[in-house]
Amino acid sequence: MQVAIAAHSGEYRDEHVKAVKDVIDGLTQCKPTILLGGYWGLMRVVADEAISRGLRVVLILPIENENIEAPKDAVIVRTGMEFRERSVVLVRSSDSLIAIGGAVGTIMEALLAYAMGKPTIVLKGTGFPTDRLELAFPDYVDDRRTSRILYVTNPREAGKLACISSGIQVKEQG
Amino acid sequence: MQVAIAAHSGEYRDEHVKAVKDVIDGLTQCKPTILLGGYWGLMRVVADEAISRGLRVVLILPIENENIEAPKDAVIVRTGMEFRERSVVLVRSSDSLIAIGGAVGTIMEALLAYAMGKPTIVLKGTGFPTDRLELAFPDYVDDRRTSRILYVTNPREAGKLACISSGIQVKEQG
Amino acid sequence: MQVAIAAHSGEYRDEHVKAVKDVIDGLTQCKPTILLGGYWGLMRVVADEAISRGLRVVLILPIENENIEAPKDAVIVRTGMEFRERSVVLVRSSDSLIAIGGAVGTIMEALLAYAMGKPTIVLKGTGFPTDRLELAFPDYVDDRRTSRILYVTNPREAGKLACISSGIQVKEQG
Amino acid sequence: MQVAIAAHSGEYRDEHVKAVKDVIDGLTQCKPTILLGGYWGLMRVVADEAISRGLRVVLILPIENENIEAPKDAVIVRTGMEFRERSVVLVRSSDSLIAIGGAVGTIMEALLAYAMGKPTIVLKGTGFPTDRLELAFPDYVDDRRTSRILYVTNPREAGKLACISSGIQVKEQG
Repeated sequence: MQVAIAAHSGEYRDEHVKAVKDVIDGLTQCKPTILLGGYWGLMRVVADEAISRGLRVVLILPIENENIEAPKDAVIVRTGMEFRERSVVLVRSSDSLIAIGGAVGTIMEALLAYAMGKPTIVLKGTGFPTDRLELAFPDYVDDRRTSRILYVTNPREAGKLACISSGIQVKEQG
Repeated sequence: MQVAIAAHSGEYRDEHVKAVKDVIDGLTQCKPTILLGGYWGLMRVVADEAISRGLRVVLILPIENENIEAPKDAVIVRTGMEFRERSVVLVRSSDSLIAIGGAVGTIMEALLAYAMGKPTIVLKGTGFPTDRLELAFPDYVDDRRTSRILYVTNPREAGKLACISSGIQVKEQG
Repeated sequence: MQVAIAAHSGEYRDEHVKAVKDVIDGLTQCKPTILLGGYWGLMRVVADEAISRGLRVVLILPIENENIEAPKDAVIVRTGMEFRERSVVLVRSSDSLIAIGGAVGTIMEALLAYAMGKPTIVLKGTGFPTDRLELAFPDYVDDRRTSRILYVTNPREAGKLACISSGIQVKEQG
Repeated sequence: MQVAIAAHSGEYRDEHVKAVKDVIDGLTQCKPTILLGGYWGLMRVVADEAISRGLRVVLILPIENENIEAPKDAVIVRTGMEFRERSVVLVRSSDSLIAIGGAVGTIMEALLAYAMGKPTIVLKGTGFPTDRLELAFPDYVDDRRTSRILYVTNPREAGKLACISSGIQVKEQG
């Protein structure tokens, strides 16, 4: 199983580090491969925590930031593509997605997961702009209802929910 | 100048056809090249209307739907990429974007335009899920404030607003 | 009809400028839209010559070089992708391809056209590395014989040959 | 270290299976992660052999064939892109490349590795069209000489040569 974790590319606080640890804790239930879009900001915390727990980590990198210093054990995928195209590869490669909190990039990754019919879990109460997504789309984004977006406050619960889904195929829609 | 128009890929009503005509009317002020992500649904109405007004039309197609019957005068770009990756090429190639109304694909295209710092105009009161975007993000999506999302009710005004911006460069952000 | 022209991204000589003029001359027979991967090196000569003859020009740009000064009349597509991914979009969008002469990038574009089953015309005797392709692959590249690569010495003939093919669909092969 | 192995997507003979075993044997010297563009044809033989030797395998899949049955232990990357765009991601993500033999797709992957300045090893005497590449380009493809293409007859030697290169950065060229 492969779980994408969407997380802020910029600054974060101690409480977010704690949330990451709890999400990974919840994920140890299924021990998935963790897919991340980079190794900076909060994504770096996720990668380090996942590796320390023995989870396999794959970094799917945009061309703007592809020559980063990465952990020795991580798989590196250099997409040759800009940030948002890279996000599509990230989400498409995953069986489910957890948005730990972030800005427009993280919001788009949650919407990508919804659009592809993948289980989408958004951690709320983080103080990041992802918190606001629920105001517009409390469950589904549109009539296709490809997957229900789950907004949860408990990070460990978020990790567990991402474990429940497996073998999801990509559903196409224009 | 190149203006992307994001529009619903599925069914639409007469009022939406009227909105398209008014948007194009507003755009005749600057006579931009119109970029569209396909030639089906409401996008087809936009393409036909733009061509009938003498505007150049470019269709940036996803691999899932690249062998469509297109108008003889349109430029065809086959990205070889899935829907959402194709949307990135669409938005990145534009100087500004008008979201005429649509579902998750259109919503993501509006967010892409914001993320790239391009003038983003969202038509509201359409009955489509794009109407709900304003509830979460009434002006900016995050602290970077790369561009202000303008929600407008008047389609002709939407067209005119898209004409104001030119020579915008892509701002990168992760 | 859309014809891709693959041409050297670096330095060139007067004889290559002459060849470009003759290729465009041959193409005036069908007045296609000309697709190019950039506006530098010999590609720039092609763009300027095509525009001066009244042909529509589309520049399909890689992210490394997307903010170039382009002719006012050209359609600009910013792929957000690196050089070689951009080349795939270029070739996939075309009905046939002429390689006017170039280095590894041009060689790959000729092979892409072959792989997609598109009419592929390679100008020979240019002094560029493309001249050497015929040594390895004098007609077909492999058993699939998706299209025959035509090596021609007369640039005007190259242009005319590219006009003959139209409405080719992409043939898929792994 | 990450090594891409380019191999035929279609039918193969016993001698090719033997070559695969020997290549992997040579690679056990550095125990790299093996990157492959699919899990069919000769690529499947490579994946199975690599996994049986304890090497980590990453499958970088094109959209045309992304829902394959893959080995449980392989990392799956769904690029959402057509065959050739997928190949760019494959090569760009690797530190060096071995072309075990194949048709136009494999030939292009070898040229991509050259174009990106990555060590490129082409196994020869396979009976596949890759054998013909040396006729045109016996060492370098063009004047940039980004990397020397090594044509070798001994598969174990090919594996060992791919181990020598590490930490190569992508060199850009148009």
